[in-house]
Amino acid sequence: MTNGAQALIATLAEAGVEVCFGNPGTSEMHFVAALDSVPRMRGVLCLFEGVVTGAADGYARITGKPAVTLLHLGPGLANGLANLHNARRAQSPIVNVVGEHAADHKQYDAPLDSDIEALTGWSHSWTRRGSSPDRIGRDAADAVAAARSTPPRIATLVLPADVSWGEGGVAATPVTPVPATAPDPATVAEIAKILRSGEQAVLLLGGPAGTERGLVAADRIATATGARLLMETHPARLTRGAGVPAIDRLGYLAEQATGQLAGAEHVVVAGSRSPVSFFAYPDKPSDLVPVGAQVHRLAEPEADVVAALEALAAEVAPDTDARLVAASVPELPSGPLDVRTWVQVIGALLPENAIISDESNTSGVFLAAATAGSPRHDVLSLTGGAIGQGLPVAVGAAVAAPDRPVIALQSDGSAAYTISALWTMARENLNITTVLINNRAYAILRMELGRVGATEVGPKAADLLDLSRPEMDFAEIARGFGVPATVATTCEELAEQFRAALAEPGPHLIDARIPSLF
Amino acid sequence: MTNGAQALIATLAEAGVEVCFGNPGTSEMHFVAALDSVPRMRGVLCLFEGVVTGAADGYARITGKPAVTLLHLGPGLANGLANLHNARRAQSPIVNVVGEHAADHKQYDAPLDSDIEALTGWSHSWTRRGSSPDRIGRDAADAVAAARSTPPRIATLVLPADVSWGEGGVAATPVTPVPATAPDPATVAEIAKILRSGEQAVLLLGGPAGTERGLVAADRIATATGARLLMETHPARLTRGAGVPAIDRLGYLAEQATGQLAGAEHVVVAGSRSPVSFFAYPDKPSDLVPVGAQVHRLAEPEADVVAALEALAAEVAPDTDARLVAASVPELPSGPLDVRTWVQVIGALLPENAIISDESNTSGVFLAAATAGSPRHDVLSLTGGAIGQGLPVAVGAAVAAPDRPVIALQSDGSAAYTISALWTMARENLNITTVLINNRAYAILRMELGRVGATEVGPKAADLLDLSRPEMDFAEIARGFGVPATVATTCEELAEQFRAALAEPGPHLIDARIPSLF
Repeated sequence: MTNGAQALIATLAEAGVEVCFGNPGTSEMHFVAALDSVPRMRGVLCLFEGVVTGAADGYARITGKPAVTLLHLGPGLANGLANLHNARRAQSPIVNVVGEHAADHKQYDAPLDSDIEALTGWSHSWTRRGSSPDRIGRDAADAVAAARSTPPRIATLVLPADVSWGEGGVAATPVTPVPATAPDPATVAEIAKILRSGEQAVLLLGGPAGTERGLVAADRIATATGARLLMETHPARLTRGAGVPAIDRLGYLAEQATGQLAGAEHVVVAGSRSPVSFFAYPDKPSDLVPVGAQVHRLAEPEADVVAALEALAAEVAPDTDARLVAASVPELPSGPLDVRTWVQVIGALLPENAIISDESNTSGVFLAAATAGSPRHDVLSLTGGAIGQGLPVAVGAAVAAPDRPVIALQSDGSAAYTISALWTMARENLNITTVLINNRAYAILRMELGRVGATEVGPKAADLLDLSRPEMDFAEIARGFGVPATVATTCEELAEQFRAALAEPGPHLIDARIPSLF
Repeated sequence: MTNGAQALIATLAEAGVEVCFGNPGTSEMHFVAALDSVPRMRGVLCLFEGVVTGAADGYARITGKPAVTLLHLGPGLANGLANLHNARRAQSPIVNVVGEHAADHKQYDAPLDSDIEALTGWSHSWTRRGSSPDRIGRDAADAVAAARSTPPRIATLVLPADVSWGEGGVAATPVTPVPATAPDPATVAEIAKILRSGEQAVLLLGGPAGTERGLVAADRIATATGARLLMETHPARLTRGAGVPAIDRLGYLAEQATGQLAGAEHVVVAGSRSPVSFFAYPDKPSDLVPVGAQVHRLAEPEADVVAALEALAAEVAPDTDARLVAASVPELPSGPLDVRTWVQVIGALLPENAIISDESNTSGVFLAAATAGSPRHDVLSLTGGAIGQGLPVAVGAAVAAPDRPVIALQSDGSAAYTISALWTMARENLNITTVLINNRAYAILRMELGRVGATEVGPKAADLLDLSRPEMDFAEIARGFGVPATVATTCEELAEQFRAALAEPGPHLIDARIPSLF
């Protein structure tokens, strides 16, 4: 006999979903027991649901396909929402399985009961509630297809315990996702005409355009037409470094972004959205498009953005090659670590084919420059602004690519959100080097306090942005979670410890102490 | 000039809301800056919103009044939802202030944008969106009144940044909450008749009935009528120990609870709900009321439950005194710590007037017996089943009652959820002794796996319930967050370390290693 949980997991595995990041509870016990019936499904335990969902996001960004998360009822999903928010902004495919009370038990409003669909609605998730063991396989196949649509999305199956334990489960064959639509020739021709017009244009990339193919096509377009090339501020995944076209990111600060876009008469967006400021500020515009400029969309969200860029390149740059970055790394600096020097150590020592999970925030303001000519790498950035993404995304990336070194560049304030991700790194022996940038402040908020016009800052306000009382020792915390760790205060120490961490398999953490920029 | 944020905080303070647990972001910078304009408002920084909301819950359980939380947009609220779920089940008054984008910024769907009201709806919160600086004071006064209604509840103000920074803020005078309704004499008389009938009755208490007044009245009723007295399984606050009437809690396991209720012809609920099992199990009933028994509600949710119990006691037990527990503590055990001995150490050494934040779960199965005759204390238990409550609630309780020793009895798996609460304990120098019961397992799930009928457990399933790979060293983790910590493996070590921690002000953690019960 096959129960619902077994049919569900068999269906997921058959559809190519082969990793389950989870934190189960009683209502998910049959799902847990069923894992052993499907050898292809790997279970990865996380100690908090924000780690579960962030890991699924990181896995999706690297593989392009969904993992399944296992979450315990509404509160378990609630704990995972912030990183689902980031995953939604990253357009990462994820299949959530959220355990739920048996149907007959719902009427009693037992302590853990809640309105799960209110939460899936918040995260814009495709959602279905399982109704019987014989249908749960088809539900799962539909969920995977929904997750793998274009653009990819989050799909959630609510799994009542009685559907999980009920006999008569039937596994289903995979459902083919709706393929991406082809580029629209008329739109490509229209934008080609604009780019050839001699008027100033910016080509703003996002989403899948951050891959090598997208960047090569975009750089050819820019080279041939003189259009300025920019990447959205927080790309889900950006390939960069030696051998790849260079691209600047649109600045986080509206002041920077306004300068980058100044003078543009046309903003062509490809996989990105029209540029807007991250927050509103008194007496400043939220819309960053220069006054009078026109916005053009190269491809609809359902379309193949990279194919559209290649079609456009074929039109405007048939004989133009992309300009590739030459290998060039900073010299190893010496002396105290600070916001300028720590990134040079990373730039100098970054290994080939690394994945960087970047949540260095204000401390990483000089990171892009320092790693511009380093060996080719992928950067996964904080897409939705919900902090606590970096360590979980590193977990998922390392599970997805066991042969690539994963570097988590993680600021202290954000690290505290999902710090137990370190335990999963140790448990799975993931090849992750975490450089914990410990500046003992919510530095970004010190900066923002002035920018929003809150200039009269008293001691209570200042205290709420100060993480130095007490100072956190992340090396001790890491060792407590089973990750070998060291402390670095100089460039020499960071370089030595970073080299050693990279040379040894498994996770390491370096608590890098730097002064706050603000 | 007064801005909206200043008017809001002044109004809260005037209404008696004098502590702000918060984790701010850019959109809350004016609120943060305004804290210095209201000297009575204390700001307590937490490193994660689950700590913020759990602390507000603990504060409310001890003081009976709301603290205000400061949360950063939808994702910040999302991170706080699980402990708001517990707070809702505890009927704790809380006022949330959730920062939001300025009104004009909403249309751009900036990265952190989301549907905040979908989340407040999930948590059954009274919700209002601030619309202008001149009205935000009145909004705040209404929010406090909503939180302090009967039963108390969660109230949420959504605070757009432009309402916060806009000038023309007007503070408002407090709004009187709707008072609790008086006991209904007809209901009291009817239940008195039932209790005198000689038929078997259970008096099941919950909510405010767990206070000394409620317990004294209930015990008088039980003594005079022969009714069995029980407390709901997970009371928000239960006063117990020497000098207080004893009361058993309804068992977590349906098997236990069924035995406790067996034979009852009447179940009278007072501040509790009709008893139901925590989870559903195959072929077992969810409704724990014995077949054929009648359920009677002594007081509606809007009524004064304690007054109703006292009215009933006056009717059926005018000349009966409550039976108070005599002081009697276990002897200090010796040898290895285990599930039976660690609680005896606590019972033997519990100080006078302690507050216990209890999230010891399976490891605490013998705790109630071991502390039954210990000095009088209050126990705050996990009301909503969303784990990760214990340390945050201890933070809030310690802020609420700086003159009382707070003891957090915390299991390892649950501790990992909100571990950064330790940092706030250190920062605020809170007098909290955390006994971290480290059994290196999700022991409750090992037990539940069998109870739900998932009896064929393979290695992958077993691995997902195992926290020993690697073992967590909570003493190291605690020191990393700034809390002095030790490890105990024997009763002698736990006793010595517990005594020392109690004797010294400020936070301490004892990592108590015990074998898993399952």
